[in-house]
Amino acid sequence: MSNYGLEVISRAQCEALLSDQQIGRVAVCGARPGVFPVLYSLLDGDIVYRTAPGEKLIAAALAREVVFEIDSYDLAARTGWSVNVLGAAEEIETPDELRRAEALGLEPWAGELRNRYVRIKASEVTGRRIAPTS
Amino acid sequence: MSNYGLEVISRAQCEALLSDQQIGRVAVCGARPGVFPVLYSLLDGDIVYRTAPGEKLIAAALAREVVFEIDSYDLAARTGWSVNVLGAAEEIETPDELRRAEALGLEPWAGELRNRYVRIKASEVTGRRIAPTS
Repeated sequence: MSNYGLEVISRAQCEALLSDQQIGRVAVCGARPGVFPVLYSLLDGDIVYRTAPGEKLIAAALAREVVFEIDSYDLAARTGWSVNVLGAAEEIETPDELRRAEALGLEPWAGELRNRYVRIKASEVTGRRIAPTS
Repeated sequence: MSNYGLEVISRAQCEALLSDQQIGRVAVCGARPGVFPVLYSLLDGDIVYRTAPGEKLIAAALAREVVFEIDSYDLAARTGWSVNVLGAAEEIETPDELRRAEALGLEPWAGELRNRYVRIKASEVTGRRIAPTS
């Protein structure tokens, strides 16, 4: 039988995984912590997602540090990986940056409510994989 | 064309979804925030997972409030849901409770490292669904 272990994923591999996925999760700390799935895209290596006025955007407006997470698992094979991006969340407000965010083609899942863009400036990217070690 | 909207999921529906899934994510705040996927099971309505000594267990040892999250999405249909469980994380240490946790049959993915059990005492369970509204 194989043993299983945690392996660190390199920054370059983390970035490749971030490019491949479409759904991630934003974890907001503070008085009202929560984890919210979002449809995202990348802009200059940062995470960008659309949102509505509310808890996610409030966190963004405060330029609070958030964690953005993606993962994937294969239950049968007992393998999987996850990537964490730590960074300050900020609403995109300048016209030039807004144009670039709109050009990403992010579909709003909750219709016209989701008309604002948040950017998570990636300050730290870490990842790990659970896989057989022998 | 349909419109999409956010719907609140009832507590009973959240509990049914929690019973159906096997993988969730623990979000830990504090000086070193992070989001970590875990294989979990339910014990008296609380979340139980195995872990290794390390960041997840340290958070647990501090009886800190954590968020446990599960979600599921269908990108093509543009529908999905997520559930957040807010609660204090505690290591399971009493022999009776440890026996009950071991009886859950949680497989350790990272081998013999994951020999300790954490219980998240669910104080608040909330969920939402993104779905067509018409």
